[in-house]
Amino acid sequence: MMDLKDKIRSIENYPQEGVIFRDITTLLKDAEGMKQAIDEMQKKLEGVEFDIILGPESRGFIFGMPVAYNMGKGFVPVRKKGKLPAEVISKEYALEYGTAIIEMHKDAIHPGQKVVIVDDLLATGGTANAIVEMVEEIGAEVVALVFLIELDFLEGRKALPDRKIEAVIHY
Amino acid sequence: MMDLKDKIRSIENYPQEGVIFRDITTLLKDAEGMKQAIDEMQKKLEGVEFDIILGPESRGFIFGMPVAYNMGKGFVPVRKKGKLPAEVISKEYALEYGTAIIEMHKDAIHPGQKVVIVDDLLATGGTANAIVEMVEEIGAEVVALVFLIELDFLEGRKALPDRKIEAVIHY
Repeated sequence: MMDLKDKIRSIENYPQEGVIFRDITTLLKDAEGMKQAIDEMQKKLEGVEFDIILGPESRGFIFGMPVAYNMGKGFVPVRKKGKLPAEVISKEYALEYGTAIIEMHKDAIHPGQKVVIVDDLLATGGTANAIVEMVEEIGAEVVALVFLIELDFLEGRKALPDRKIEAVIHY
Repeated sequence: MMDLKDKIRSIENYPQEGVIFRDITTLLKDAEGMKQAIDEMQKKLEGVEFDIILGPESRGFIFGMPVAYNMGKGFVPVRKKGKLPAEVISKEYALEYGTAIIEMHKDAIHPGQKVVIVDDLLATGGTANAIVEMVEEIGAEVVALVFLIELDFLEGRKALPDRKIEAVIHY
């Protein structure tokens, strides 16, 4: 087992002054590191009963798909506004400056399903919380959220009270 | 073995009049269909010696990652302009109207590596050809391109002469 942090590149002052960006591309290109990352995310779901995985565009696709494949589940892409071709449910949420809108197909999940959300990063929790709200509007249930990285100092968990939240790497 | 076309939703006149959009989200949410799609893409690489998989944002992430994981390889995300944090190589290519720019990290692959490109769709071949050019500028080699869907009538193969091109589903 390697320390996955050794494979993540930290880029200072990106995308803005004072921020350290955690670049996962250096982990992804390393076959062993990537496999370990996926396996550890998957391990966080041991014992969790669920039906389907949702991942937000676009790094949620990177981690959500192999976990879904490995666990024998389907995958639902949550996309930025205007990318999905059929009828959608939308949710606006706050960014540091302004707002963003994410969408999923209305028929992607159905009432009563147990859903897991997978993404690369838990920062402020804004995206994750918007997805939770969409899932619950449809009448399905979010049973866990799994992230590769959690930025503890941003306290994203506070945006997601009483949720099962798991992360493999913490900064 | 199911007919994967049964799981793909066809949406007429999207994104514009006269076009039939092949919506893969209905395949992805079906655990069995998604697994079969990934397995069949992977089978196209049997006997191909390669080092790493490249997938373009964002549906290339969906298919490229599980194939890379399953075959014990690393994965390189090729992204739209301005999304990657470290030094990039860029390539502009023609769209139906105007142009687009894709980028990859300069250190994502290195000279001599054998690369496989994975994406959901081969249409006109513009994106794929732009990636091939970037790979070759770095001094690496594209040994195969694997798509879930090929739109035969758009003749994307003509943009990629003398390449090993594989697709699971044809329209």
